[in-house]
Amino acid sequence: MLVAQQILTPEDGVAIAKGLEQIRGEIEGGAFVFSEANEDIHLNIEARLAELIGPVAGRLHTARSRNDQVATDFRLWVRGAIERIDVAMRDLQAALIEQAEAYADWVMPGFTHLQIAQPVTLGHHLLAYVEMIGRDRGRLADCRRRLNECPLGAAALAGTAFPIDRVATASALGFDGPAANSLDAVSDRDFAIEFLAAAALAGNHLSRFAEEIVLWSSEPFGFIRLSDAFTTGSSIMPQKRNPDAAELVRAKTGRLNGSLLALLTVMKGLPLAYQKDMQEDKVPVFEAADALELCLAATAGMVRDLRPDRERLREAAARGFSTATDLADWLVRVLGVPFRRAHHLTGEIVKRAEARGATLAELSLSELQQVEPAITQAVYEAIEVERSVASRTSFGGTAPARVSEAAAAARKRFLA
Amino acid sequence: MLVAQQILTPEDGVAIAKGLEQIRGEIEGGAFVFSEANEDIHLNIEARLAELIGPVAGRLHTARSRNDQVATDFRLWVRGAIERIDVAMRDLQAALIEQAEAYADWVMPGFTHLQIAQPVTLGHHLLAYVEMIGRDRGRLADCRRRLNECPLGAAALAGTAFPIDRVATASALGFDGPAANSLDAVSDRDFAIEFLAAAALAGNHLSRFAEEIVLWSSEPFGFIRLSDAFTTGSSIMPQKRNPDAAELVRAKTGRLNGSLLALLTVMKGLPLAYQKDMQEDKVPVFEAADALELCLAATAGMVRDLRPDRERLREAAARGFSTATDLADWLVRVLGVPFRRAHHLTGEIVKRAEARGATLAELSLSELQQVEPAITQAVYEAIEVERSVASRTSFGGTAPARVSEAAAAARKRFLA
Amino acid sequence: MLVAQQILTPEDGVAIAKGLEQIRGEIEGGAFVFSEANEDIHLNIEARLAELIGPVAGRLHTARSRNDQVATDFRLWVRGAIERIDVAMRDLQAALIEQAEAYADWVMPGFTHLQIAQPVTLGHHLLAYVEMIGRDRGRLADCRRRLNECPLGAAALAGTAFPIDRVATASALGFDGPAANSLDAVSDRDFAIEFLAAAALAGNHLSRFAEEIVLWSSEPFGFIRLSDAFTTGSSIMPQKRNPDAAELVRAKTGRLNGSLLALLTVMKGLPLAYQKDMQEDKVPVFEAADALELCLAATAGMVRDLRPDRERLREAAARGFSTATDLADWLVRVLGVPFRRAHHLTGEIVKRAEARGATLAELSLSELQQVEPAITQAVYEAIEVERSVASRTSFGGTAPARVSEAAAAARKRFLA
Amino acid sequence: MLVAQQILTPEDGVAIAKGLEQIRGEIEGGAFVFSEANEDIHLNIEARLAELIGPVAGRLHTARSRNDQVATDFRLWVRGAIERIDVAMRDLQAALIEQAEAYADWVMPGFTHLQIAQPVTLGHHLLAYVEMIGRDRGRLADCRRRLNECPLGAAALAGTAFPIDRVATASALGFDGPAANSLDAVSDRDFAIEFLAAAALAGNHLSRFAEEIVLWSSEPFGFIRLSDAFTTGSSIMPQKRNPDAAELVRAKTGRLNGSLLALLTVMKGLPLAYQKDMQEDKVPVFEAADALELCLAATAGMVRDLRPDRERLREAAARGFSTATDLADWLVRVLGVPFRRAHHLTGEIVKRAEARGATLAELSLSELQQVEPAITQAVYEAIEVERSVASRTSFGGTAPARVSEAAAAARKRFLA
Repeated sequence: MLVAQQILTPEDGVAIAKGLEQIRGEIEGGAFVFSEANEDIHLNIEARLAELIGPVAGRLHTARSRNDQVATDFRLWVRGAIERIDVAMRDLQAALIEQAEAYADWVMPGFTHLQIAQPVTLGHHLLAYVEMIGRDRGRLADCRRRLNECPLGAAALAGTAFPIDRVATASALGFDGPAANSLDAVSDRDFAIEFLAAAALAGNHLSRFAEEIVLWSSEPFGFIRLSDAFTTGSSIMPQKRNPDAAELVRAKTGRLNGSLLALLTVMKGLPLAYQKDMQEDKVPVFEAADALELCLAATAGMVRDLRPDRERLREAAARGFSTATDLADWLVRVLGVPFRRAHHLTGEIVKRAEARGATLAELSLSELQQVEPAITQAVYEAIEVERSVASRTSFGGTAPARVSEAAAAARKRFLA
Repeated sequence: MLVAQQILTPEDGVAIAKGLEQIRGEIEGGAFVFSEANEDIHLNIEARLAELIGPVAGRLHTARSRNDQVATDFRLWVRGAIERIDVAMRDLQAALIEQAEAYADWVMPGFTHLQIAQPVTLGHHLLAYVEMIGRDRGRLADCRRRLNECPLGAAALAGTAFPIDRVATASALGFDGPAANSLDAVSDRDFAIEFLAAAALAGNHLSRFAEEIVLWSSEPFGFIRLSDAFTTGSSIMPQKRNPDAAELVRAKTGRLNGSLLALLTVMKGLPLAYQKDMQEDKVPVFEAADALELCLAATAGMVRDLRPDRERLREAAARGFSTATDLADWLVRVLGVPFRRAHHLTGEIVKRAEARGATLAELSLSELQQVEPAITQAVYEAIEVERSVASRTSFGGTAPARVSEAAAAARKRFLA
Repeated sequence: MLVAQQILTPEDGVAIAKGLEQIRGEIEGGAFVFSEANEDIHLNIEARLAELIGPVAGRLHTARSRNDQVATDFRLWVRGAIERIDVAMRDLQAALIEQAEAYADWVMPGFTHLQIAQPVTLGHHLLAYVEMIGRDRGRLADCRRRLNECPLGAAALAGTAFPIDRVATASALGFDGPAANSLDAVSDRDFAIEFLAAAALAGNHLSRFAEEIVLWSSEPFGFIRLSDAFTTGSSIMPQKRNPDAAELVRAKTGRLNGSLLALLTVMKGLPLAYQKDMQEDKVPVFEAADALELCLAATAGMVRDLRPDRERLREAAARGFSTATDLADWLVRVLGVPFRRAHHLTGEIVKRAEARGATLAELSLSELQQVEPAITQAVYEAIEVERSVASRTSFGGTAPARVSEAAAAARKRFLA
Repeated sequence: MLVAQQILTPEDGVAIAKGLEQIRGEIEGGAFVFSEANEDIHLNIEARLAELIGPVAGRLHTARSRNDQVATDFRLWVRGAIERIDVAMRDLQAALIEQAEAYADWVMPGFTHLQIAQPVTLGHHLLAYVEMIGRDRGRLADCRRRLNECPLGAAALAGTAFPIDRVATASALGFDGPAANSLDAVSDRDFAIEFLAAAALAGNHLSRFAEEIVLWSSEPFGFIRLSDAFTTGSSIMPQKRNPDAAELVRAKTGRLNGSLLALLTVMKGLPLAYQKDMQEDKVPVFEAADALELCLAATAGMVRDLRPDRERLREAAARGFSTATDLADWLVRVLGVPFRRAHHLTGEIVKRAEARGATLAELSLSELQQVEPAITQAVYEAIEVERSVASRTSFGGTAPARVSEAAAAARKRFLA
């Protein structure tokens, strides 16, 4: 650009570009010698360039400042991190959708307050996380779009008197255009905070899933089993499978929340333009990106690895009279019983089941008819957990047919 | 919808609708009697409805649960808050742009590290905040778009067996469509966290401006003066004008960061689906919305109210040899002096100015020529602060012509 | 003090004191009319005092400023809150110790990674929380001690020329002495932040216990049952007992963390002395104190209310071969088997138990002797869960005798 | 201890101790080869010990678990960090007290709301920070005392059946005694959170001082000058001295707040006992300790380095009619003018000074007498800034005599 704008001569431009290419090679090859005396990466490179091409190296810095350069570099880094994370999120969605398809009709208890509430399917449950990750990807995409303005040319803070072409440099670096205000360009760290906020929320979702994995693989639940790849065990206690990976994913929310609040704290009340405080933006962002990438990979791995126990899931789903509301609805819908009376009759039937230690579907027809003679064999369509699940056919509901449709739709929305 | 889907009879539908209309009137008129025994708003309304229309009131709750209802209601509230805040942000941008136009060529010091670095214009400085608020509006708009999916019909968590039309209810409430997964619909609070994150970042921007107002209205700076509407004073110390409003805006970042962290903490590691913990979502969101609305109004008020002191701004801009880099650039550009030598000569000239207690532009031509005889009268084009400012014509730079263009562009981008 | 120091005449002192007493009565009786025009509580009272006693009311403010007064008042409030909270914490400890005594020998599974690890007793488990709350009380006591320095007399920020007696006013208000530096006295909010940090950590402990209550009262665990006072249920799903109180306690960590962060954010980077920002100290402290008091009362209530299911606890404790390490230790200790071989033999025995679906203690002696003929009947002392528990007699260990001693010691340390 | 309790034979004890000594030497000498296959530090050492002394190495782990060991190790680490930080804080106090003594009578403006309020002395201002750091040291000392209970012997979570002597091991490691409850001992991370809270609050204090350094060394203030050791400059802008060190200290509050919230988040809602999540305790604590130590050293360095500009400080102190309240007080005290009238007269005098562009003390006696004829030469005792400062002799006040006393007292309280 400097050559095209006749700010540098073509010869100087070529010399600088060649020198920089050589330096890139030296850095990538590990041959570059960094010196602390040269303060930072910028001055190290410029000093080496001077060794290579002489005083013309000084022209490298024309119409540029470390302030706009570091702002540009850091945007490029965050943009790259977003792209990597998007791939990892997509892969997690793929894993969830695959499993949701496989378990579209596996019945399990749906919980509210960690109390068994209504039967759902495991596929349905997994798809809930596909939605969460989908929103996470949306937030990161929005962040990427918003950050994709190039600070280069803002110089120290005021712009420059050199006749530079900011559109050209922005475009060369893959930005959508130049940042509109030079003071803002060098003092803005919104992109980093927005990234950290999106990362914290994504980590939050993963912590919820991790908590479920810890619960589900605990002995009292016994819903799933994870392989040695994601657990550590005890040679003499074979059933002990510590879900280390899930616990670490759950714990990483700490790091992610902390990183977000660290940078929000740093930026509070900073006057324009560049302040040295902003140098504290790197560590929280690097740590958060690392933590999130690790968590995404670990979670996708666990999703693919987990082996649900169909029998225990089904059995748990039937406990707690989880289809009592289905029974009441059936009495209203099929027998035309008024709502309040249906409710009362259901309570009576549940009491009998409880006294007998049976689930609702384990009561015989005659037992049911002792409470309400009009009840017919068809009632089992409502109170067996599979039938209950199959009946919830509203859009987004847990009926296996809906779950399969939802999985297919999710493939299109997120994996296409 | 329930009538259209033949889940309720038209008569029942009309009765319920009429009853609810009456209740709305009672609530708005202050005549409605809430009872704690009826636990929450839902049951209070249903109880009153039963008084008004009898047992058919029980059908109000058909195919619905408090879980999906509260998720829907809270989304509507957040959506409304976003819309109010967008109006307030737009107004703040309008105030900033007006003032930027008025002060497009008022010279002031540009600071880095709170050290005077290069002269800029006040209009340019104010437009930096227009960019920040513009990004804030973008984040809130993205949040609004993402939250605009309707949970209604998710019921308790699993969907429902009633043949409901979720597209219809979503559309009636202004949503873009129904939420895709019932478990997610009732356990998601992303929209609240995303709102809080956007609010915290917006509050961060306002804290930066507030800090500047506090600095600028302090005696050592003396850049601006605020009226009694935004300061409190002392009857016997007439120059003491405590910038209370700015201090409170700066302090509200505490509340905003705290609210964000509060909800992130609440949601950490919650298994699906609804947990009572989620009830703790309301206070942080209400408090954050209130705080942000207050801060936006106060800041717009201060922007319109502030009276800059042109003389002190200009004088400060000339201190600290703020145009030394302009001088060095001029030596390179106009006299063709090599970069390093230009740098050396500038250092010499600055030393003389410092010894004399003068600014660069206050040195006579002969004084300058004692250091470098080739210097001509034209050098003053570079080293007077107005000329320096006028020279920074790169896109987004501080030249008054650019500032005026940028203000006009901002009108189109943000106020159209 | 002002009279004693001859700054006010005795007559003026009496008039002011009488007037203030009357105002106190008016405020407590609800008769006091506050006016927004009088800005704040200080000026409202002074204005009313002037109505009551005339111009001498102006002397109320002698040698005093709102800055030192609000700092003093807020310290008094926090001190009072600490005292109330200490009482509530002591009561929670009392409830835990009572239950620990009652359940000193009730066996339950000890978990690591939510996997059954080793049997412990319920009493032992409850005493762990007594320790946590004990540390919380220590932190609050330290905070109280540290805050108990009186700012009064710091005046606006610089002290005063009036010959006041700060020791006297400090003592009259129950402080240990006057604050040593007037600038610090009016700009310090350490006491509030330290209180919030102690509250957040206490809330953290309560969140851990709340999580356990939620787990334990879930159907798959079924360890405890809470009464209707702390749960909400479903008329037709009698086993569904949503542990609302525990969920809310768990969620309040959000508020507590948020309040702490809010004030840390507010105070960041504030120059001395008083800044209006500090006014934002009240709401986080009030909200945190309310939240913590509520959580302590709810938790103490739940501790007293919970009904453990001895059979389910014991049965769970025996699962997962939780005494396998006891068996290996027995082989080393009693039979002198080398460590590695003991480990190997234990693994063999566990395999057989697993194959048979039995616990270790359910294997017959002959079955055990098939693996290692030297095993005797005495081995059951090690592998029955009650014996395992009873064997852990190290100080602080879970042996019922130790638990009873620890409960008695806790009574002395915390309740005396 | 294991030998003393006859759990190990003396021979085994000696062999293990010798082996461990050798390993210590290998680690310190850099010769120790760590293997990832050996999972963690514990197993690496045990494996090497087995190489050195054979199977008896297995007895190293007798009556011990990694759970109680890591809890013990981490407490030792935090205890050591507290001790290092206490030394650094004491050194900062020493630096502040030295400078306070040197500048006990240097007049500077005291600010409220960053508005000039009343004159104080620089020594007085610096001593305010001595108080803050004093409280920080107190908090760390309390934290150290509270953490100084030894978890060793808690084993995995339940204690042990071996007849260990926990008092002996506690004492050997410098603890005050053994932790009272084994479950608590392995699941407690209070000490780390309390440390982080104390560190965050200390960082907060340093951020306030850093903000003042940034302000004071800005051109509009010009109160102090820092050397090149704590600033970076510009070769051609000699007055530009970017206060990098102060900015970084200010920014580190981000890291410190973030670390605190990270660990509070990690520990939220974790059931007992050990969870893998707790492994996330190390990084926040290490990072916070590093950040705080760095900030303390940098701040002490800046305190010793800073060169105040006596003339600018004094001149600023006299601006803003900062002694107007002294004048009003003088009229009351000396002339017996009623309070309200004194206030009115002062307002009149200030108006005249303002009109003339003079400070109060620059008005002639006859000018003052035009407003109130009874005013005498003695009034200058009140309105000259030095006299104003000297008059504030209340305990903790800014009178130089008091400041010198306070500095001497601070030496005794904090440096003895």
